[in-house]
Parts: sequence; C-alpha cells; structure tokens
Amino acid sequence: MKVAFIGLGAMGYPMAGHLAKRYDTLVHNRTAAKAERHAREFGSKAVGLEQTAEAEIILTCVPVSRDVDELAHALLPHLRPGTLWVDHTSGEPELAKQTAALLASKGVSYLDACLSGGVAGVVNARATVMCGGSEADFERAKPVMGSYAAKIVHVGPLGAGHAVKAVNQGLLAVNLWALSEGMAALAKQGINLGLALEVINASSGRSNVSENLFGQRVLSREFPNTFALGLLAKDMGICVKVLEAAGTPAPLLRQLREFFEVAKHEVGSADVDHTAVARLLERWAGVEIR
Amino acid sequence: MKVAFIGLGAMGYPMAGHLAKRYDTLVHNRTAAKAERHAREFGSKAVGLEQTAEAEIILTCVPVSRDVDELAHALLPHLRPGTLWVDHTSGEPELAKQTAALLASKGVSYLDACLSGGVAGVVNARATVMCGGSEADFERAKPVMGSYAAKIVHVGPLGAGHAVKAVNQGLLAVNLWALSEGMAALAKQGINLGLALEVINASSGRSNVSENLFGQRVLSREFPNTFALGLLAKDMGICVKVLEAAGTPAPLLRQLREFFEVAKHEVGSADVDHTAVARLLERWAGVEIR
Amino acid sequence: MKVAFIGLGAMGYPMAGHLAKRYDTLVHNRTAAKAERHAREFGSKAVGLEQTAEAEIILTCVPVSRDVDELAHALLPHLRPGTLWVDHTSGEPELAKQTAALLASKGVSYLDACLSGGVAGVVNARATVMCGGSEADFERAKPVMGSYAAKIVHVGPLGAGHAVKAVNQGLLAVNLWALSEGMAALAKQGINLGLALEVINASSGRSNVSENLFGQRVLSREFPNTFALGLLAKDMGICVKVLEAAGTPAPLLRQLREFFEVAKHEVGSADVDHTAVARLLERWAGVEIR
Amino acid sequence: MKVAFIGLGAMGYPMAGHLAKRYDTLVHNRTAAKAERHAREFGSKAVGLEQTAEAEIILTCVPVSRDVDELAHALLPHLRPGTLWVDHTSGEPELAKQTAALLASKGVSYLDACLSGGVAGVVNARATVMCGGSEADFERAKPVMGSYAAKIVHVGPLGAGHAVKAVNQGLLAVNLWALSEGMAALAKQGINLGLALEVINASSGRSNVSENLFGQRVLSREFPNTFALGLLAKDMGICVKVLEAAGTPAPLLRQLREFFEVAKHEVGSADVDHTAVARLLERWAGVEIR
Repeated sequence: MKVAFIGLGAMGYPMAGHLAKRYDTLVHNRTAAKAERHAREFGSKAVGLEQTAEAEIILTCVPVSRDVDELAHALLPHLRPGTLWVDHTSGEPELAKQTAALLASKGVSYLDACLSGGVAGVVNARATVMCGGSEADFERAKPVMGSYAAKIVHVGPLGAGHAVKAVNQGLLAVNLWALSEGMAALAKQGINLGLALEVINASSGRSNVSENLFGQRVLSREFPNTFALGLLAKDMGICVKVLEAAGTPAPLLRQLREFFEVAKHEVGSADVDHTAVARLLERWAGVEIR
Repeated sequence: MKVAFIGLGAMGYPMAGHLAKRYDTLVHNRTAAKAERHAREFGSKAVGLEQTAEAEIILTCVPVSRDVDELAHALLPHLRPGTLWVDHTSGEPELAKQTAALLASKGVSYLDACLSGGVAGVVNARATVMCGGSEADFERAKPVMGSYAAKIVHVGPLGAGHAVKAVNQGLLAVNLWALSEGMAALAKQGINLGLALEVINASSGRSNVSENLFGQRVLSREFPNTFALGLLAKDMGICVKVLEAAGTPAPLLRQLREFFEVAKHEVGSADVDHTAVARLLERWAGVEIR
Repeated sequence: MKVAFIGLGAMGYPMAGHLAKRYDTLVHNRTAAKAERHAREFGSKAVGLEQTAEAEIILTCVPVSRDVDELAHALLPHLRPGTLWVDHTSGEPELAKQTAALLASKGVSYLDACLSGGVAGVVNARATVMCGGSEADFERAKPVMGSYAAKIVHVGPLGAGHAVKAVNQGLLAVNLWALSEGMAALAKQGINLGLALEVINASSGRSNVSENLFGQRVLSREFPNTFALGLLAKDMGICVKVLEAAGTPAPLLRQLREFFEVAKHEVGSADVDHTAVARLLERWAGVEIR
Repeated sequence: MKVAFIGLGAMGYPMAGHLAKRYDTLVHNRTAAKAERHAREFGSKAVGLEQTAEAEIILTCVPVSRDVDELAHALLPHLRPGTLWVDHTSGEPELAKQTAALLASKGVSYLDACLSGGVAGVVNARATVMCGGSEADFERAKPVMGSYAAKIVHVGPLGAGHAVKAVNQGLLAVNLWALSEGMAALAKQGINLGLALEVINASSGRSNVSENLFGQRVLSREFPNTFALGLLAKDMGICVKVLEAAGTPAPLLRQLREFFEVAKHEVGSADVDHTAVARLLERWAGVEIR
C-alpha cells in the first residue's frame, strides 16, 4: 500500500520513518531538504505536494488546523475518490469539519487523529491516538497508525479526536497552574518542596504533572524545552472553542485559558517550556519554587 | 512502650488496631462503647480521657483542629513533660500552632501528621503520613506510625503536614472539577466518555482522579460514599487558610473553594461522596456524564 | 425622505412611531398585523419585506445579528445602490461585518447603531446610540436617529457600536453580580441592606445598578420584568466574542459570562428580569437579600 | 464638650480642623510636630496620648485596625467609664469587635464609623459615614460627626460600618478592573475610548468609576495619586474577611482580591494611585488605554 506523510516536524519525522519500514511511503515537507534527508535515512520517497495525492492514505501533522485546510485546498484538484486523509494535527473540531466537508466533495474521507505521548512516544512507537470520524475510516487507518502508536481509540464522530485532545490539554494546564499555586504557598512557609511533592505523589492529588513534570522540570530549575508554553496556550484556545461549541459552563477551564494567555505574555517568551508557567506564579508570590 | 489513641473513627479504629499489635495501647473514644469493642477486638485497653495521659505518645485522629485543641485543654492538667502528641487530624496549621504552644507550656511536644491513602490505606498499613514539627519528634514518632503507614515524610516545621495535606486536597478538588467540566462538554458533543477517559489516562492530562475515581464513581453512576463532599469542602477551606497565611496569590485554588461551597449547598447534601460534585456541573450543562 | 423600519418590537414600535412624525415611513414586521396597527396609530405605511427596499434609509431592530443577516439576504435582490442600512440590533461585530460586506456587494452601506436607554429611552426620545461605520454614513443617519435619541455618538469603525454596547452590558452584569455577592454577605451579618445601599450610593462603589436597579427591583423583591436575564446572558456571549476578537485577557468578564449562563439555567427561567440573578446568589448564600 | 482626635493624616487633619471650630478639641499624632501645627492652624490643643483620655469622645483615624487596637491597649489604664470611642479607620469587623470588647472592660463604648468621600469630602464637610454599634452611641456621636459629614447612617451592629465599607471598596475594585478589561479590548479594536466612555456613562453599565475616575485618571494618563493601590488591595483583603465571616460564596469579589494582590506586585509599586491597576491590564493586553 502507498501512503503519504505531509509535515516532517519533530513528531512527523519519526512517524513517517516508522511508516517507511512497512509501506511505500511518500513524504512531503515545506522545506524540501528535510524530506530528502528523510528519504535517505528511511528509504521513503520525497515528493512535491501534488504527488502525495497518489497515496491511498494521506497523513498530515502540521502546526494548526488552518494549515491542514490550506493543504486540502491546494491538493483538492489532484485528490482521487476513495482516498483517506488522516490528520494528526492538534486542531480544532469546527475547522476539521470544514476541511472534511471540502474533502468529501471529492469523495475523500477524513479522520481527525490527535496524538499523545510526545516525541518520545512516537519514536518508541508507544504513542496514543484519539480518533474522530466514521467507524469504517477508523478501521482502515488503524493498522497504519499502529506503526507508531500503541493505543488507538475511536472516541466519536468527526472532530471528537480534536475535542478529547483539547480537554486533555486543558487538564494538563490546570494541573500545572494549580500545583504551581500550591507549591508557591508551601515554599513561602519554608516547607521542603521535594518532600511535599513526594507525599502528594503518594496521595489523592497526584497527577501526571506532579509525577512526571514538576520535579524534573520546575523544582530542578531546568525547564527543558520540549513543549512550548505558546503551544499549550494555543491548545487552551482550542479547548475554549470546544467548550463554546458544547455550550456548557466551564468557569475553571475558561479562566485557566486567560491565565495562560497572560503567562505567554509575561514569562518573557511563548517559546519557553510549558512548565515555565510556574515562573509567573513565582513572580506573583515573590518566592522561588525549588 | 505505652501509647494512647484518641478518636476511633473510620480511620482511627484500624490504626489503633495496628498499634495494639505492637504496643501497650490505650484507646479512648467519645462513645465509650466503641473503645470497649476495640479492646475486645484488638486487645487494647479502653480508658477515660484523663488516663490517656499515662502514655508516652498520644495520637489523635478527630474531625477538625478545634476538636484537637479542646482535647489538649481538657488533658492539660494531666499531661506529663516529655510526652509526644501526634495529631493525625486533617487540620489547620494556625490552630495546630496554638495547640502546640499550649502543650509546650507543659513540656509536651507536638507533631502534625496528616494521613493520606484513605481507610484502605490504613487497614493495609500502606498509608502515607506527612509530618510537620521538629526532627527529633519526627524520629521518635516514625516507628510508631510505621504500624499503619508505608511512607512517612517529614516535610517541614510545625504545621507543614497540615499545609501539604491541604494543598493535596486542593489538587484533588481541582481535578474533580476540571475533569467534570471537560467531560460534560464532551458528553454534550456525543463523545464516548469511557473511551475519552481511557485516552486521557494514557495522556498528559491524567491524574489520580481520572485514573482511580472518575470512571469507577462518576461514569458508573455509583458515587459510592467513602469521602464526603462536605469534608472536601472543609479541606478546601483549610487550603484557603494556608494560602492566606502564605500571602501568595492563588486565584485558581481560591476560586475552586467557592465552587465547592456552592456544590455543598446545591448537590442536595454535603454527605454525598466528593465525586458527586460532578452532578452540579451536569445540572449546569444539562447533560449526564456517563 | 422615505425611510423603512423593520422589527416593531418593544423598542422598534415607538421608534418607528417617532420616525413617522417626520418622514415618509414604511414599516415591516414578521407579524403583519402589528405593522398595520402601527400604520393606523402613527400614519406609517405597512408593507411587505421587498417594498422596504424603496426607502433611502432602512432601519432594523431585531433580536439577534443572525436575523439581520437573514433580512439582508432576503432583501438583497431588491436593494438599490446608495441605500443606507442602519442596524439598531444589539448584535455581534463579526456578523455585522459579514452583513456589511454582503450589502456592500450591492452598493448598500451599513451602520451598526446600538441603542441604550431601554423602552423608556426611545419612547421619550432620550435614547443613546453608539455607532460603528464610516463618518459619512454616520452623518447621514444622525438626523434620522435624532427622532428618538438624544445622544448619538460615532465610536469607531464598523462593528464598534456593537462592541461598545457589549462591553456596557458586561459592566452591567458585573455590577449586578458583585453587588449581589456583597449584599448577601451583609444580609447574613444582620446589616440593614436599604441603609447599606444608601451609603454605597453616596460612596465610590456606586453604579447605575446600585442607584437605579438594586433597591427598586431586588430589595423590593419585585423583580419587574423589563429586560430578561436570558437577553443579558446573550449579551455577555457577545461580550466574550468581542474580547476574543480583541485577543486581550479578560478573566473577570469571561468568568462573569459563565456565571450568567449558570444563572440562566438555575433561576427557573431565562425570561425573568435580569436582576433576578441575585436570586442565585441568595440561594447559594442561604439568605434573602431584602 | 471636649473631644479628642488621634491620627492627623490626610483625612484626619481637616476632620479635626472642623471639630476645633465647634468643640474643645485635643489632637494627638505620632509625629507631634503635626499636632502642634494643627493647634496653631485651627486652635486645637496638641497633647500626649494619655491626655486624650480626658475627652468625652475620642475619635481615631489611623491606617489599619491593628493600630486602633494598639491605641486602645495603650490608653486603657487612662480611660474613664462613659467615654465613647469613634473609629473612622477603614478596618476589620472582627478586630473592631475585639477592640470594642477591650474598651467595654473599662466601660468605654465603641462605634465603628467608616468614612467615604475622600479628602475632598471631609475638607468640604460633605463626607459620608457608615456606622456600626448601638443606637445610643450612634445618636451621641452623630452631631459631632456632622462637623465634617453630610450623610451619617447607622447601618447595623458593631462592625457593620467596616463591613459595608469593605463591600463598597470591593465594588470600586470590581468596576476598576472590569472597565479596564473592557477598555483594553475596545482599544485593541481601534475604538475611540473617550467616546466609548461617554456612551457607557449614558448607559446601564455606568458607575462612579466610569463617570468620575476612568476618564480623568486613566484615559488622561495622569493617574494622580489620591488613594494608593496598596490601600485598595488592603481593603479588598478586609472585604474577603467580611465574606469569610459571612460564610457566603462570592467567587467574583474573592477572585478580584487575588487580581489586586497581583497588581500590587506587578504595577511597580503599591504606592501608585489605585486607578493604575489599569496599567496591568494594558500590559497583559499589549495596548495602551487612552
């Protein structure tokens, strides 16, 4: 089977590498040199955008939904009925529906398939994928996604993958912020934060943030940049759109989005690691969280 | 060594049971019959309040700090210098400091030693204890607490145990509320919540709440009552006092406390399980989270 | 000059009546009988929708922006270049821009012209109008609007009238909510609320809400229905869209919108007067504000 | 009648001046030179603290409740039964009750009597006073306070004056913040803020802040320092204590207090005028409000 992968970023590059081991894999990237390097490294084939339309399954992994929609418009004249488009972008349900409607006009079906697990997850083929779309499209794409994902779940109709991902990001943000608030208060009172974190991690308030991020990144003062604060703020924006589409009250998650917008402006740069949001609370509290 | 345990509630009863296996254990309870039952079951000795002062270490586990302070006042004439008072109540740092100062006037030292792990944790001797006080008092109490706890951590000065516990409870509350908001929005959009929870639990937004509470208690519609909403609201009140004492801004945790106060009034009863806070968001959203 | 007025609701009916005293006035309403009554009462001329296109200036006052856009689509084939469309709906800047673009395709210009002052304001020709659009269109419409408005201000480009109105409604909502919170707390402490309001009205915290609404409507327990809670909640939704379009952090106003959505669900009906939002805080506080 | 005034700050100095025109007035100030200047200017008599106990009515106007309580302790041995203590400090109900209880032990009664109207209000004898205490004490103090106040209201029991004042300050803060949020959003969209403010002031969202502060202080970029941001933040802290004592949910006012704590840290200095809180929202929004 022939597949095509568009968008060879930090996530896409290794994903397309895994695909190339199993399938006849076309790769396309805005910067062509990267695609050529990929071809040399993994035996994929670097092609122009139009040529990706030759694949049975086209996979995309680009920064935002708007990029996917532009790709769909650009490729539209070349697409063939029966093609399946699998989008791994952390995108917006409403825009995904528009893109899907556009593709449907050419007989192309669409699956939103958000990833979780980060770069390490896809490199080790241990990623999680949450999909929105039809059951048939999901079943067709599942084995292909199995190249880099260990958990592949069909959570609901078109847009559902984006929606679940957006809520997950909201929960990540909430935990980062709330733990920073709490730790700043404990720091101010002379409490050993490493030990406090240890007991929280053995207690009911623990989370992925407390177990896997806060100690290694914040208390260590390292803030290694693997996922930018600006991207999490963008995801919170999508989360708010999902809440808006649902029409359900969500005072906490919406409030948090405002705080992350503020943090993006105030922490010096939107490019710092997302855990650097703790620095804003440190400044407000007049204490270092260490 | 002779120890005394005051407060044979759901937590205290099995804790004192473990102690009786290792130490000469006096037990006291407001309802004397319960202490007598404990004596029969575990070989402890049911005594009047005054007599607990004979122990080298007095342990308390009662509803609120005010109760501990009243016990301290009542026992004060009987206490002997050199006694150590270990308080397992989920209490307030400021009140604990008052009680400690009172006890110090009689040469009695005090350790605040909050528990985590619930009834199952103490029954299985797997509880976590977070302690505030002097290093010497901590070392003296540690082997005794080892009767029911697997992780015993000295997090800082007097009150630190209460403070860390309060922050942990705040994080628990934040996760309950935020996940309820997110799930209500996903429910409204026809997404399979069981699968959504499954992928969140494989992703960065996961927490103890998403992994161990939300599926079993909320999605199942069972809301088994093991920890009352009213008690979590009380703990949020302590959390706000800890924040106030620290003097650090914490808009999220303080906001959450207001929401839990509202929930306590609105969910029908403060006695329902804490996870029933989800019912308030369901009502506001006009959707069932299942 | 010939003018046309579409939408003879509580506001539009008297406005069109004032116009009929000065201009050759066509009136149109979804329920034709109301237009005919207007014609009899004020000497206007009841017409079908198409015929309103004969006017030099078409004025609309309908519930939401979507209605205006539908009217524009329906009238489009009949509109003549050079016509000016003045929209008095409390609407959304973004939708207004779409409608304006549609009208521009036929050479019709558009002014968003939100009203303030309520029914009494237009009846007494004392209303305030805040306009967005070109200076030329504003100058052309101003004398016509002078039929029912005493203060007519050109606040900025297309959509600006809607935006300023939305912020005003946000401030109204904020004052209603905050005063309810404060009064509930004072009530709980046995303070005379009428006197408290009197001193606040002589102090720095006073507002239109404290001076003209709270005593007459809330403390009096009358809650006369002149402006529905559901409409204010709708306006808060527009306010949030204005904030979103600006891309500026606004934690307070966005939070308030959530609270008004909750209030709409919880106060029994979205049709009660907007001041009945106080009833929600009463319930949460367990006290009557009187 | 002999009266004594303690605390000759910006408010107290002119207040004691008015008293000296009508009564035999003793004045005391921490910096004695100020009291001596007052004596020369108004014919009052500068005295040591102890000597103020000779007055029938002692009036205080100092920064915080703690100062009043310290004065009460210091004067206690000298106070005579039947003396009335009128406190004009913007203080805390709970502390006021403690001070009152202390004074009562010497047969001295206490009235909390918060002021509103600022320096100009007392200079022009147009201030408002909101009093908490007994009806008899209120009636006794009323004519004396009439020297500098035009509106003198007995709002409830001991502490009620402080409580009403605290709520008023909360409303002031809410209006400052909400208007800043709204204006920042309008500024970002190219709207004329002076005109926007003009229409809001003719509409339902108007307040003392929009009518008398925002144009003159924020839009003008003058921020004249008449009431410090740090003092308003302090008052918000009292407001939160009043809410806490009431036990009523107040998510908005409590949230605001957090924002003012942040503002105090972030706007460069707590000594700037309270309207400078707008600068924080400007920075977050990346736009100037002018």
